[in-house]
Amino acid sequence: MFSATVSAPTNIACVKYWGKKSVALNTPINSSVSVTLDQNDLKAVTTVCVSKSFKKDRLWLNGTEEDVTKSKRFMACISGVKRLATTKVSTEGEVLVDKSEWKHFGVHVSSMNTFPTAAGLASSAAGYAALVAGLAEVFGAKETYPGELSTIARQGSGSACRSLYGGFVAWRMGKDHDTGEDSLAQQVCDENHWPELRALILVVSDEKKDTSSTEGMSTSVNTSKLLGYRASTVVDERMRSIEKAYTERDFETFGKITMQDSNQFHATCLDTYPPIFYMNDVSKSVIKIVHAYNRWKGKVAAAYTFDAGPNAVIYHLEDVADELLALMLQYFPDDKFLGSLFGSSFVNNPQAWDRAKAFGLDDELLRMCDAKGRARGMGGDVKKIYITKSGPGPIVLSKEEALLDPETGLNCYVKGVAGDGGGVALGLFGLGLIGFGFVVLGGAGLVLGGGRGGKK
Amino acid sequence: MFSATVSAPTNIACVKYWGKKSVALNTPINSSVSVTLDQNDLKAVTTVCVSKSFKKDRLWLNGTEEDVTKSKRFMACISGVKRLATTKVSTEGEVLVDKSEWKHFGVHVSSMNTFPTAAGLASSAAGYAALVAGLAEVFGAKETYPGELSTIARQGSGSACRSLYGGFVAWRMGKDHDTGEDSLAQQVCDENHWPELRALILVVSDEKKDTSSTEGMSTSVNTSKLLGYRASTVVDERMRSIEKAYTERDFETFGKITMQDSNQFHATCLDTYPPIFYMNDVSKSVIKIVHAYNRWKGKVAAAYTFDAGPNAVIYHLEDVADELLALMLQYFPDDKFLGSLFGSSFVNNPQAWDRAKAFGLDDELLRMCDAKGRARGMGGDVKKIYITKSGPGPIVLSKEEALLDPETGLNCYVKGVAGDGGGVALGLFGLGLIGFGFVVLGGAGLVLGGGRGGKK
Repeated sequence: MFSATVSAPTNIACVKYWGKKSVALNTPINSSVSVTLDQNDLKAVTTVCVSKSFKKDRLWLNGTEEDVTKSKRFMACISGVKRLATTKVSTEGEVLVDKSEWKHFGVHVSSMNTFPTAAGLASSAAGYAALVAGLAEVFGAKETYPGELSTIARQGSGSACRSLYGGFVAWRMGKDHDTGEDSLAQQVCDENHWPELRALILVVSDEKKDTSSTEGMSTSVNTSKLLGYRASTVVDERMRSIEKAYTERDFETFGKITMQDSNQFHATCLDTYPPIFYMNDVSKSVIKIVHAYNRWKGKVAAAYTFDAGPNAVIYHLEDVADELLALMLQYFPDDKFLGSLFGSSFVNNPQAWDRAKAFGLDDELLRMCDAKGRARGMGGDVKKIYITKSGPGPIVLSKEEALLDPETGLNCYVKGVAGDGGGVALGLFGLGLIGFGFVVLGGAGLVLGGGRGGKK
Repeated sequence: MFSATVSAPTNIACVKYWGKKSVALNTPINSSVSVTLDQNDLKAVTTVCVSKSFKKDRLWLNGTEEDVTKSKRFMACISGVKRLATTKVSTEGEVLVDKSEWKHFGVHVSSMNTFPTAAGLASSAAGYAALVAGLAEVFGAKETYPGELSTIARQGSGSACRSLYGGFVAWRMGKDHDTGEDSLAQQVCDENHWPELRALILVVSDEKKDTSSTEGMSTSVNTSKLLGYRASTVVDERMRSIEKAYTERDFETFGKITMQDSNQFHATCLDTYPPIFYMNDVSKSVIKIVHAYNRWKGKVAAAYTFDAGPNAVIYHLEDVADELLALMLQYFPDDKFLGSLFGSSFVNNPQAWDRAKAFGLDDELLRMCDAKGRARGMGGDVKKIYITKSGPGPIVLSKEEALLDPETGLNCYVKGVAGDGGGVALGLFGLGLIGFGFVVLGGAGLVLGGGRGGKK
């Protein structure tokens, strides 16, 4: 039995991927580019364990076993990495497994993420990147050309290919539509290129989205005339401009394209029939406040982007970090009542929170933001704030971090109990409020702590 | 002194107008088509009074005088209709005013509408159509070609040109970009062509929108790549298909294009930089419930459309009217508390309301709608419901309906007092709720009754 545990980052696109060229190959109708986020703040952790004694391939996701025998995507990742496997040799030079033997090994996988699943924070990107990186580590996989592993991760979840690299990463759509071999990720700049770049994430909802990305893309490709135009005519120029901007650390251009492309992606969702909505009124308030902030600044100092969910990611530079967080806390504070009940882990960085709370915001700025219609001091709409930055690709972790038992190869990860308890309590609280005619919070699945959880 | 009082209808487009080809001529970047609504339910009323003794042109809007000396649009309508004026002759054949004399006459105008102003219910369309129709009546204007008066109304407010005709009315964008002479309205079918067609209007907000149509269009034309593509490539085919569908009373095609085009218009607003939002979460719930209803019906039985505001107009046929209203009242009921305070005028047709309340909705339908995430029985988000249908163009009213004093030519209309009082009370109520951390209602400008008001 051999095993490896890796962590992998999530990534948030600045030029968005929306629409498949080939469903079978999971290739896109346009190229895209994203910032890989720091795994100290958000990550997926995956342990892969392989053994000849495993009768079938198994997966535990956040501690619960899923039936993967039906999952073509999961199986495509296993078979894809197995094809690149090399002979395993001990430090003494002894052959432990000949590469021809790997096909007889069963695969167990346990994966968890430290942030909400399927709520538009690219949990599947981080998850599939960690899966492929973990498999590659166990099998000693060697690429035959740069980016080959990313073509495998792409088959798991499109945007997962970008999470195999740190920094600013492009997914080139490719030209070989028969094999998808050249539809791969390419690092534009590494994670040390722009150390001042920051991302502020406002988790507006941690509930699962009601239209999955795959289903939404398919409907959009079939019904939105605007999406086809975007993919064929708008995106290439944006890719060139934003890669240049990132390379030159030109935040104004980087930020403007990021906002425009987020809005255009959501516009194509709205042009879909029936229309798809991922942003809500809270998301819209974030957008309006960011534009008010930029107008007050006299430049693009903050740039929002929204994936397939209502959560905002706001890119900015370090020099405005305290001011921007202070501003967001004015309009999207933590819920004092719930905070006192469950303990506050509202912001992932307590020092930044303290600095922001002490920050003196300009009166004119507040007046301009107030005019956008969002009331100050109204808590509960934003569930959690992450402050993060760009980070590296997948990292191999120590055996102590393993989520599969080293003796049995069975799952040993249990989802955090504090978070689950909070969800139940909020569910009851939400129902209570319905009696007054207001629904403030969704009842199910709310994870306040986002804690790592423990092991059995 | 001569005077005339007319009423004019509003219209709600099925293929939307968004974007000006020429700001000076007020011509559009694409053709559009709309249903003219029944003036028994929503209308603008305008009295025009002309006299050589009037020193300057004056306008009272909903009882309050506005300075029109700066308004190019208002002045363009007056000078445009004056150019088509004819000699006024008494019933006895006596010349009262030679047409060459009209240029020495000052114009007084008083105008009111029976529905919220500038909230995306085409109040300016009805208002400018009434102005041009009133001026044409006073001056005995004669068109030199069909639709010429509509080219004048167009200069007041683009969509006003369509309100000069009843039924289903196209605005042809025209080819003469130097004069705009052929950018005019044309009746596709009259108001008796499709007597079963109904419109259910849900007034989600009666506050003034924060981005005016003119300003929004200008930003969209300058920044949205999708808007240019829509105008040049998508709209013409939609115009042909929907005119054919209306002519053949094919609701499925009519309804599908109506929904698609509403969504595409709002998509181009979202693609604008900075983005423009007219729909809110209540609008989105309406959309989701309409699609659930259609899926349950197994056909397009209801078709929403949204102008530049959050209010929904749902076209449907008479045979589903009770069911559709009953369904909407499940998810968007009147606010019981406010209703009891201010008296209920929630639905403009009490008989239809009674029928809908007695209607037994299917359990499976309700289950499908519940799954869309909107809670049942939550009042207050919809302020007022209008049930209406297609109607005729402008109508000349009797002298008893005049809004200008026949002796002095000065305004004698006062805006309804009941509505204003309600607004103040709601303002206080809204502030009270802020103390609990919830803002349910905007404080200002809420008109519950929409009453006609009285005269001084």
